[in-house]
Amino acid sequence: MDDCIFCRIIKKEIPARILHEDEDFLVILDAFPSGLGHTLILPKRHIPDILALDGAELERLAPLIKETAGRLKDALGFDGLNVLQNNGPAAGQTVFHLHAHLIPRWEGDRVNVKWPVKKDLRDEEIDEFVRKVKF
Amino acid sequence: MDDCIFCRIIKKEIPARILHEDEDFLVILDAFPSGLGHTLILPKRHIPDILALDGAELERLAPLIKETAGRLKDALGFDGLNVLQNNGPAAGQTVFHLHAHLIPRWEGDRVNVKWPVKKDLRDEEIDEFVRKVKF
Repeated sequence: MDDCIFCRIIKKEIPARILHEDEDFLVILDAFPSGLGHTLILPKRHIPDILALDGAELERLAPLIKETAGRLKDALGFDGLNVLQNNGPAAGQTVFHLHAHLIPRWEGDRVNVKWPVKKDLRDEEIDEFVRKVKF
Repeated sequence: MDDCIFCRIIKKEIPARILHEDEDFLVILDAFPSGLGHTLILPKRHIPDILALDGAELERLAPLIKETAGRLKDALGFDGLNVLQNNGPAAGQTVFHLHAHLIPRWEGDRVNVKWPVKKDLRDEEIDEFVRKVKF
């Protein structure tokens, strides 16, 4: 897609700091990072979200995340790591070409991944939901 | 592990709302959810984090996340979805048995996945990091 910044990075029309490239994926540093080592893993195919991942991409994604995480750990010795993949503007996605964030964490940093616990769900509502989704 | 709450759920010693179970994984509703449909995907093997995922677990994780996400979407029609996997206390992990969160999102909800952009990284520091990690 001509107006997708990740597609333009994949086509080398826009520079990026590339950690890894193969047939299906590109691994780059985030240009607006939380800190050193904030990394993005993206399929080369322009797809918006996790529901559009397919075939080899699907099988290879978690192994590639693990491999990248291990290398970040060796280089940085971080205290922790968030793997985060946002789908849709309501979830914080800003570039609509699927990507997973690997966010190295340190004690006391200012990264925030939190939610208030919703306490007013009714048991019947939850049970009905489980019946609908179970597979 | 006797003192791991997820291992006890897997052994059916503690109840949980189960969406799916197979040889390698359990998919359950989070007992402290951000909202309806907040789901956890966990390997049956007691492993702490993504660096310990292996073999079939690794290949099957993303396909299982996609399958679950599709079913949540069909049931809820959410506005967005965060897939989040925390490694280590500094990253917000509280149960030390690997799990991925699927967090359905709605416009205006109070889930927070944010970080301030770190603007004082030096180019040389970043380039040195890339040389170290590249694969």
